[in-house]
Amino acid sequence: MENESVVLPKKQEFSSWYNEILWRAEIMDVRYPVKGLYVWYPFGYSIRRSVYNLLRSLLDMDHEETLFPLLIPENEFMKEAEHIKGFEDEVYWVTHGGKTELEIPLALRPTSETAIYPMYALWVRSHADLPLKLYQIVNTFRYETKHTRPLIRLREITSFKEAHTVHATWDDAAEQVECAIILYKKFYEDLGIPLIISRRPDWDKFPGADYTIAVDTIMPDGKTLQIGTVHHLGDHFSKTFNIQFEDEKGEQKYAYQTCYGISERSIAAIISVHGDDKGLVLPPVCAPVQVVIVPVLIGKDRDAVLEASKKVFEELKSAGIRVKYDDREIRPGAKYYYWEMRGIPIRVELGPKDLAAGRVTIVNRLGLRGVIPLVDLVPGLSIALDNLSEQLKVRASEKFKSDIKYAKNYDEVCSFVETGVVAVDWCQNKDCADIIEEKTGASVLGTDVRTPDISGSTGVCIACGARAKIAILARSY
Amino acid sequence: MENESVVLPKKQEFSSWYNEILWRAEIMDVRYPVKGLYVWYPFGYSIRRSVYNLLRSLLDMDHEETLFPLLIPENEFMKEAEHIKGFEDEVYWVTHGGKTELEIPLALRPTSETAIYPMYALWVRSHADLPLKLYQIVNTFRYETKHTRPLIRLREITSFKEAHTVHATWDDAAEQVECAIILYKKFYEDLGIPLIISRRPDWDKFPGADYTIAVDTIMPDGKTLQIGTVHHLGDHFSKTFNIQFEDEKGEQKYAYQTCYGISERSIAAIISVHGDDKGLVLPPVCAPVQVVIVPVLIGKDRDAVLEASKKVFEELKSAGIRVKYDDREIRPGAKYYYWEMRGIPIRVELGPKDLAAGRVTIVNRLGLRGVIPLVDLVPGLSIALDNLSEQLKVRASEKFKSDIKYAKNYDEVCSFVETGVVAVDWCQNKDCADIIEEKTGASVLGTDVRTPDISGSTGVCIACGARAKIAILARSY
Repeated sequence: MENESVVLPKKQEFSSWYNEILWRAEIMDVRYPVKGLYVWYPFGYSIRRSVYNLLRSLLDMDHEETLFPLLIPENEFMKEAEHIKGFEDEVYWVTHGGKTELEIPLALRPTSETAIYPMYALWVRSHADLPLKLYQIVNTFRYETKHTRPLIRLREITSFKEAHTVHATWDDAAEQVECAIILYKKFYEDLGIPLIISRRPDWDKFPGADYTIAVDTIMPDGKTLQIGTVHHLGDHFSKTFNIQFEDEKGEQKYAYQTCYGISERSIAAIISVHGDDKGLVLPPVCAPVQVVIVPVLIGKDRDAVLEASKKVFEELKSAGIRVKYDDREIRPGAKYYYWEMRGIPIRVELGPKDLAAGRVTIVNRLGLRGVIPLVDLVPGLSIALDNLSEQLKVRASEKFKSDIKYAKNYDEVCSFVETGVVAVDWCQNKDCADIIEEKTGASVLGTDVRTPDISGSTGVCIACGARAKIAILARSY
Repeated sequence: MENESVVLPKKQEFSSWYNEILWRAEIMDVRYPVKGLYVWYPFGYSIRRSVYNLLRSLLDMDHEETLFPLLIPENEFMKEAEHIKGFEDEVYWVTHGGKTELEIPLALRPTSETAIYPMYALWVRSHADLPLKLYQIVNTFRYETKHTRPLIRLREITSFKEAHTVHATWDDAAEQVECAIILYKKFYEDLGIPLIISRRPDWDKFPGADYTIAVDTIMPDGKTLQIGTVHHLGDHFSKTFNIQFEDEKGEQKYAYQTCYGISERSIAAIISVHGDDKGLVLPPVCAPVQVVIVPVLIGKDRDAVLEASKKVFEELKSAGIRVKYDDREIRPGAKYYYWEMRGIPIRVELGPKDLAAGRVTIVNRLGLRGVIPLVDLVPGLSIALDNLSEQLKVRASEKFKSDIKYAKNYDEVCSFVETGVVAVDWCQNKDCADIIEEKTGASVLGTDVRTPDISGSTGVCIACGARAKIAILARSY
């Protein structure tokens, strides 16, 4: 599928680089005949598997996985007023079964609160049933009218992980919000993705929530990408769907709830944050292939090299490293191009010289070369994989920090926001936000910024001069 | 959730036993407010995880996993004439996005041929691209007008594994059909489910296929349950969707295809074939919990027993056995009831006497008791788990064999088919099949029976006396 003669656009031209890499690295095919729906290539899907296995392993520590239906009857869907307003223009409706018109139209879930909570009303009876912490990984649907983009803005979100928890008190739910943020931080730390963690302004919170904490990252063009949200739902949904429990004193109480989600945007972030002009760069934890072995066949030692390469392959495989042995009859250069495009963390080369010296040569995806004695193969490669993970994390974090600037006036905001994210002082008043957004063309992403640390605050609102706190302004996907 | 005072119906009353066990063992909740849609409880979902991980591990040996969109545009869906006829009454149609009517209605996939093959037309270019063997595990939809039943007849099939392969010749595709049957045999053998493997009569093959080989099992009431199908699609779809490749001589040729599927009926089969009057019985390979440890706390050795039980737990866990430690403050009897209902393969009891003797007592789900010295804990339990797998397989196979009888005349058919499956001689002529079906109330399930072996054939059609071959007659789900 790849053609070396066609050069990948530079990452600086982010939009075309992103589109090009999706098919060159065989992640998604955009040619499916419906706008906003895409096909996962097997290689892309194997990245999805690794990423979601990581997410599952974190959730499974204190959540349970479950599965609710895709189709939500109109009457349930319409119960929570705020929630409907947030979604009604975006919902796909099933109106017919065969040629028969359905009595009650069925919504394709845009998110599953209204599918899950009628069941929670049946499941939660007593304080002993709480907390209840379940999640599912499902396809959800949005009738997007904006420009769609693979993994980022979709009509079928194929990989939505949504967790839904129930608690006895508002405070317990607030504590769960904190637990979810810790979990998301861990997940993205493992993937080397730096985060802005902040509280969404009230007008941008989840429809039906008390408040929303979001995690965003910064894309190569300086725009932010929301890659996770955590919502404190208060008792809005429990009152609507009648989720009550008997407390220790025998009284019936409404429960408090949270929900939090991550979609395949997590994979868009991996591609965009780590990738480079040569293609994908995958952190070892989510690379479908962590190590590729390329035998270098020169001269008469051919058979010995092939045999040694196979032995290396078997040894790495039994050690649980995800490894490929590439013995295709093509030039080594073509192989390097192929595996670099797919972001494989480490290439192991084994030629006659290596064999004679009892070692392999390794080259990591960022170009760092080294040798590992055959007797230390497995521990040596494990260290090399860890080092690459660390190298990716540091590199991403440095870029991230340089993309966020504190602006003390409108001119600075307008200038900084062209290429990155801007921190300003804002009084938390909506009128001032409207003025700031209009003057700068950027939007208020969030306040109460937890990470990263931002210095330089004057404590004075950029718009009205009143007492203020740091807010993040950004252009967003 | 369980209540010991309410007794599970006997398995002989299959329909009520099945419904009762689904919620008592926390597999599915049937109270979702749309007919034919059900909710997976976390415990049920963890069985689903194990079963589908097994299926994935078998497929991954020479297939790749992928993911195609749920929504299929009407114009693509309508391309293959036979195929439409087979599905048009059962398709759910999305007609609106928000309040906007869609230009082209979108079908919820009832199966994905028409979603996948337009992409295969783009992907397959040369003989070097063949064979192409992909699969996906997805939700599919059927607007069922018949009586729905959890895991068996659903409007949302939540767990459809569908494989789609492309080959250069009709014979290559036929060989792939055989490979798929071997794979399905292995899958069901691992689960201890006995199979009837046969060729569906022409009027019952997959819409658009050359022929269909099906795998069925026998439910406790003697009706068969189709739990897998393999279809040779010939070049019907490749001609419709223009899937062509350039062969070695540079000529454009239409490809040949197969597809084969397994749904959550595989889990209905596990429940129904192995379960008993006490509840679920799970083969160790798909049990979310393979071993439960119940400390028996009597007298003064309480602390020592607790400590030893925890050590047993840790040892089994690090050996990779899926183990639970049940230290709830309830009667041992209540614990036994709880874990038996959920089909846990082996219960480990550890009391003061066991401790003194340096052993544990084990009881497997079929009631077989034994002891294992603490020094042999892991190998001892591994053997006990293997023995239970074997015991389940043998038990299921004996019941299965007794459920199939050769009938030499109509009276025998009518009598045998009340409680099981009947083999008869049939000339392969549709008119005779109609007569046989009408006279006996059973349907022709299949011919060319590969398993089980059936003896007693007279070689003479039961209806017309012409030369005949064995066919299976059954009542089916």
